[in-house]
Amino acid sequence: MKFTINQIASLLDGRVEGNGNEEIYTLGKIQEAEKGSITFLANLKYEEHVYSTKATAVIVSSDFEPRKKLNTALIRVKDPYSSFTVLLEEYHKIISFIKDGVENPSFIGTECSVGEKIYRGAFSYIGNHVSIGNNVKIYPNVYIGDHVEIGDNTIIYAGAKVYENCKIGKRCVVHAGAVIGSDGFGFAPQEDGSYKTIPQLGNVILEDDVSIGANTTIDCATLGSTIIRKGTKLDNLIQIAHNVEIGSNTVIAAQSGISGSTKVGNNCVFAGQVGIAGHLEIGDDVKLGAQAGVMRSIEKGKTEIGSPSQERMEYFKGLVVIRKLPELRKRIEQLEEKVLNLPAN
Amino acid sequence: MKFTINQIASLLDGRVEGNGNEEIYTLGKIQEAEKGSITFLANLKYEEHVYSTKATAVIVSSDFEPRKKLNTALIRVKDPYSSFTVLLEEYHKIISFIKDGVENPSFIGTECSVGEKIYRGAFSYIGNHVSIGNNVKIYPNVYIGDHVEIGDNTIIYAGAKVYENCKIGKRCVVHAGAVIGSDGFGFAPQEDGSYKTIPQLGNVILEDDVSIGANTTIDCATLGSTIIRKGTKLDNLIQIAHNVEIGSNTVIAAQSGISGSTKVGNNCVFAGQVGIAGHLEIGDDVKLGAQAGVMRSIEKGKTEIGSPSQERMEYFKGLVVIRKLPELRKRIEQLEEKVLNLPAN
Amino acid sequence: MKFTINQIASLLDGRVEGNGNEEIYTLGKIQEAEKGSITFLANLKYEEHVYSTKATAVIVSSDFEPRKKLNTALIRVKDPYSSFTVLLEEYHKIISFIKDGVENPSFIGTECSVGEKIYRGAFSYIGNHVSIGNNVKIYPNVYIGDHVEIGDNTIIYAGAKVYENCKIGKRCVVHAGAVIGSDGFGFAPQEDGSYKTIPQLGNVILEDDVSIGANTTIDCATLGSTIIRKGTKLDNLIQIAHNVEIGSNTVIAAQSGISGSTKVGNNCVFAGQVGIAGHLEIGDDVKLGAQAGVMRSIEKGKTEIGSPSQERMEYFKGLVVIRKLPELRKRIEQLEEKVLNLPAN
Repeated sequence: MKFTINQIASLLDGRVEGNGNEEIYTLGKIQEAEKGSITFLANLKYEEHVYSTKATAVIVSSDFEPRKKLNTALIRVKDPYSSFTVLLEEYHKIISFIKDGVENPSFIGTECSVGEKIYRGAFSYIGNHVSIGNNVKIYPNVYIGDHVEIGDNTIIYAGAKVYENCKIGKRCVVHAGAVIGSDGFGFAPQEDGSYKTIPQLGNVILEDDVSIGANTTIDCATLGSTIIRKGTKLDNLIQIAHNVEIGSNTVIAAQSGISGSTKVGNNCVFAGQVGIAGHLEIGDDVKLGAQAGVMRSIEKGKTEIGSPSQERMEYFKGLVVIRKLPELRKRIEQLEEKVLNLPAN
Repeated sequence: MKFTINQIASLLDGRVEGNGNEEIYTLGKIQEAEKGSITFLANLKYEEHVYSTKATAVIVSSDFEPRKKLNTALIRVKDPYSSFTVLLEEYHKIISFIKDGVENPSFIGTECSVGEKIYRGAFSYIGNHVSIGNNVKIYPNVYIGDHVEIGDNTIIYAGAKVYENCKIGKRCVVHAGAVIGSDGFGFAPQEDGSYKTIPQLGNVILEDDVSIGANTTIDCATLGSTIIRKGTKLDNLIQIAHNVEIGSNTVIAAQSGISGSTKVGNNCVFAGQVGIAGHLEIGDDVKLGAQAGVMRSIEKGKTEIGSPSQERMEYFKGLVVIRKLPELRKRIEQLEEKVLNLPAN
Repeated sequence: MKFTINQIASLLDGRVEGNGNEEIYTLGKIQEAEKGSITFLANLKYEEHVYSTKATAVIVSSDFEPRKKLNTALIRVKDPYSSFTVLLEEYHKIISFIKDGVENPSFIGTECSVGEKIYRGAFSYIGNHVSIGNNVKIYPNVYIGDHVEIGDNTIIYAGAKVYENCKIGKRCVVHAGAVIGSDGFGFAPQEDGSYKTIPQLGNVILEDDVSIGANTTIDCATLGSTIIRKGTKLDNLIQIAHNVEIGSNTVIAAQSGISGSTKVGNNCVFAGQVGIAGHLEIGDDVKLGAQAGVMRSIEKGKTEIGSPSQERMEYFKGLVVIRKLPELRKRIEQLEEKVLNLPAN
């Protein structure tokens, strides 16, 4: 890209301080940005970098007051981070590698309906009776089973696998290696100690605007559907078991796992490596700290942490006492010494 | 499918109450079942649903006594859940997408022996000197290395990878993206702080009736074999390190990991996100709670939980006291106040 | 292979006891080795096996003193384990399945530069503007995005995926199903509760001699690079988030996860299932126990364990007191009984 500082300021509805005619070619982090790049200062913790950065321009808050001399132009905006995100998006549009058309060899079964402007990468596989919307990107080595539906503008990255009957909404992103619709883990114990496989006949539904991370696995329902609702974002290496339902706009970090038939509400935020047992209800707006182990249902709005998880404040209070245990033991010993030396009464 | 209630009852050796001539087309969950479907009631916790379900028939226990009026026919059987599983299996046979034959392009090396009625999906890769039994299904984008053996009736789902020399038994299921036989994690520290790779020459053996979940990884042995014995079921995203041996009919839930050279017995049940250190022996019939961290060997029949894991009853006793710690601290303070105010003796 | 004991001893600079003319065909573990194989005894814990092994030769320490009669020849060396590793390497060279040339069909885009003696497996995909060094092995079903660079002698195993712009050094190993360069997990919350995707424009850099385990995922940076430095080894199913930097010769065991923007030093050793929060600094030579949960930065050379993690000695001291809690509670009760019975003063 090539824009002047003035042009960028105008895009961001910002005010320029310094030479607005200088040219910007790229974006960078404030510590690493080189001449010709633009960066931002959102958190004053990083203020020192604004005085030493080599960036040609820095997006700052409209009320930022420099305490030292600056070697860079400023663009003052209301919210520097949001403005920078706008630039990221514009830049992304310019540099992104637009994939289009059909690469060969690729495989498509019978009775499929395929929209316009789609990309089908080499060695991608599409089964029978598959329905694919407009502007869908199917990267190389992707597997799409029979009777799958994929909505407009969805991207399925390299080597992801979607089992038969699953439904994926519009504007979804499924990252490389993710598996959608593998069999739920259901086995009935037999009298001789062996297990009989319980057929898994359901599917997975991803509603619109859902994002699924790399190598994440989502099992199909035994009957009915495992459901991830609109706008929910799952990170990498997450396990979603059969018949789980996750609400709208919930965000789950990497390596978390949710056991069978558990329902998670809307607008939840779970940190990494969280585990949730099966058949629970987690209300809306629940927050879970990293490595939380959830063994019972949680009401709307709570924040829990620990394994087994407890309410956040209790967890930290408990932690403080636990860390003081060696001291408490000493105090008990001192009491015992004193009390045992008392004259019998 | 299309059967009358009487036909289904006869298949299940059950007794009909209501109109046995009504027709059943599908299976459903009791809360969601529509007219024309059959469902079941195994756990009386869900009894309320039997009075409101729209299902045309419900499989119930032979001693079930309705407390309200029913709008559905009943099929009374000894074990409703088992009977429903039988139906699931029958239904699965009817609707399952039978894959057969060879899709093109696919790749097969030299000196392979391939059984009858197999499916080789497009873009599946089979190396040299591979032996494949009858009725094996190799889905698209699967990779099978040189000298691999696969027994009759085994299914390898899309994009699974099997490294050279591994042996897979009969009636196994390997789900999408699973990796069988990747190098064990073995590196010898050198004097300069760098690591030298220790060649991993062994393989992985999956005995008959083993099931491997999506994106699970099983490393080959350094020498000899990493072994998963007959009937054992592994869920998704599990890590099995080099030279591990897992006994028969053991069930391990998602995201658990077992470190190098550990031996696990028969008929064990591990919940999700369990970790087991290396070079341990876990006896038969051991149960582990979710997120357990096992740092020493465990004897036959024990149930452990926690990290580091301890016997289940001790864990819960300990947990109760830990949760009372703030109270205990207060009691110590009260004692101190009282004792320190005592006259010197 | 086929060598005499004398020939092997000469390779290892060792001294033979027994018939040096006997022939060796393979390598084995001391408990399982058959006639015609060679094994080693490094840890005297396994000494008993040296008297019962069926191996034709055992590599032992130069100062090993047998306490019973031996049925096997010995090769005495300074360090039996290192010597055996040398043999493993030689054996690996002999038996390894050298892959070479281009299998068809495979896909390669435009304006690529490809070195000599490379292997491109069937159904492997290489995008546009890709640079590949000499002696690189690209296994079947691998995906290499546009503008990727791969150094000499690197191996990318089956079904691994490398997103656009990533750089992989020399002598790296990327195991099956690993994903390099997937989008960082970045979403900006909007006022209506939904999330807007923050474009991820950076890449991943693997320096020379890096090893990446099966199904491990490494996200690209938002801007700049996620970096894994020279000689670092990652096990299976690990999550490395956007903008993480890991130093040189650091070893991380399976299922660990490192959150965004955290920096890890050189020569660290992390056990399995470790989690590290974002924006932290972990110094050189830090060791972390299995399942550690790291919530703040750690100084050079420390060993931590637990969740939240603490210094190793403190952790174990604390654990001892926690396990004694039921007893401490009883002692408090006894004190209370005694003290409450005291005459008022």
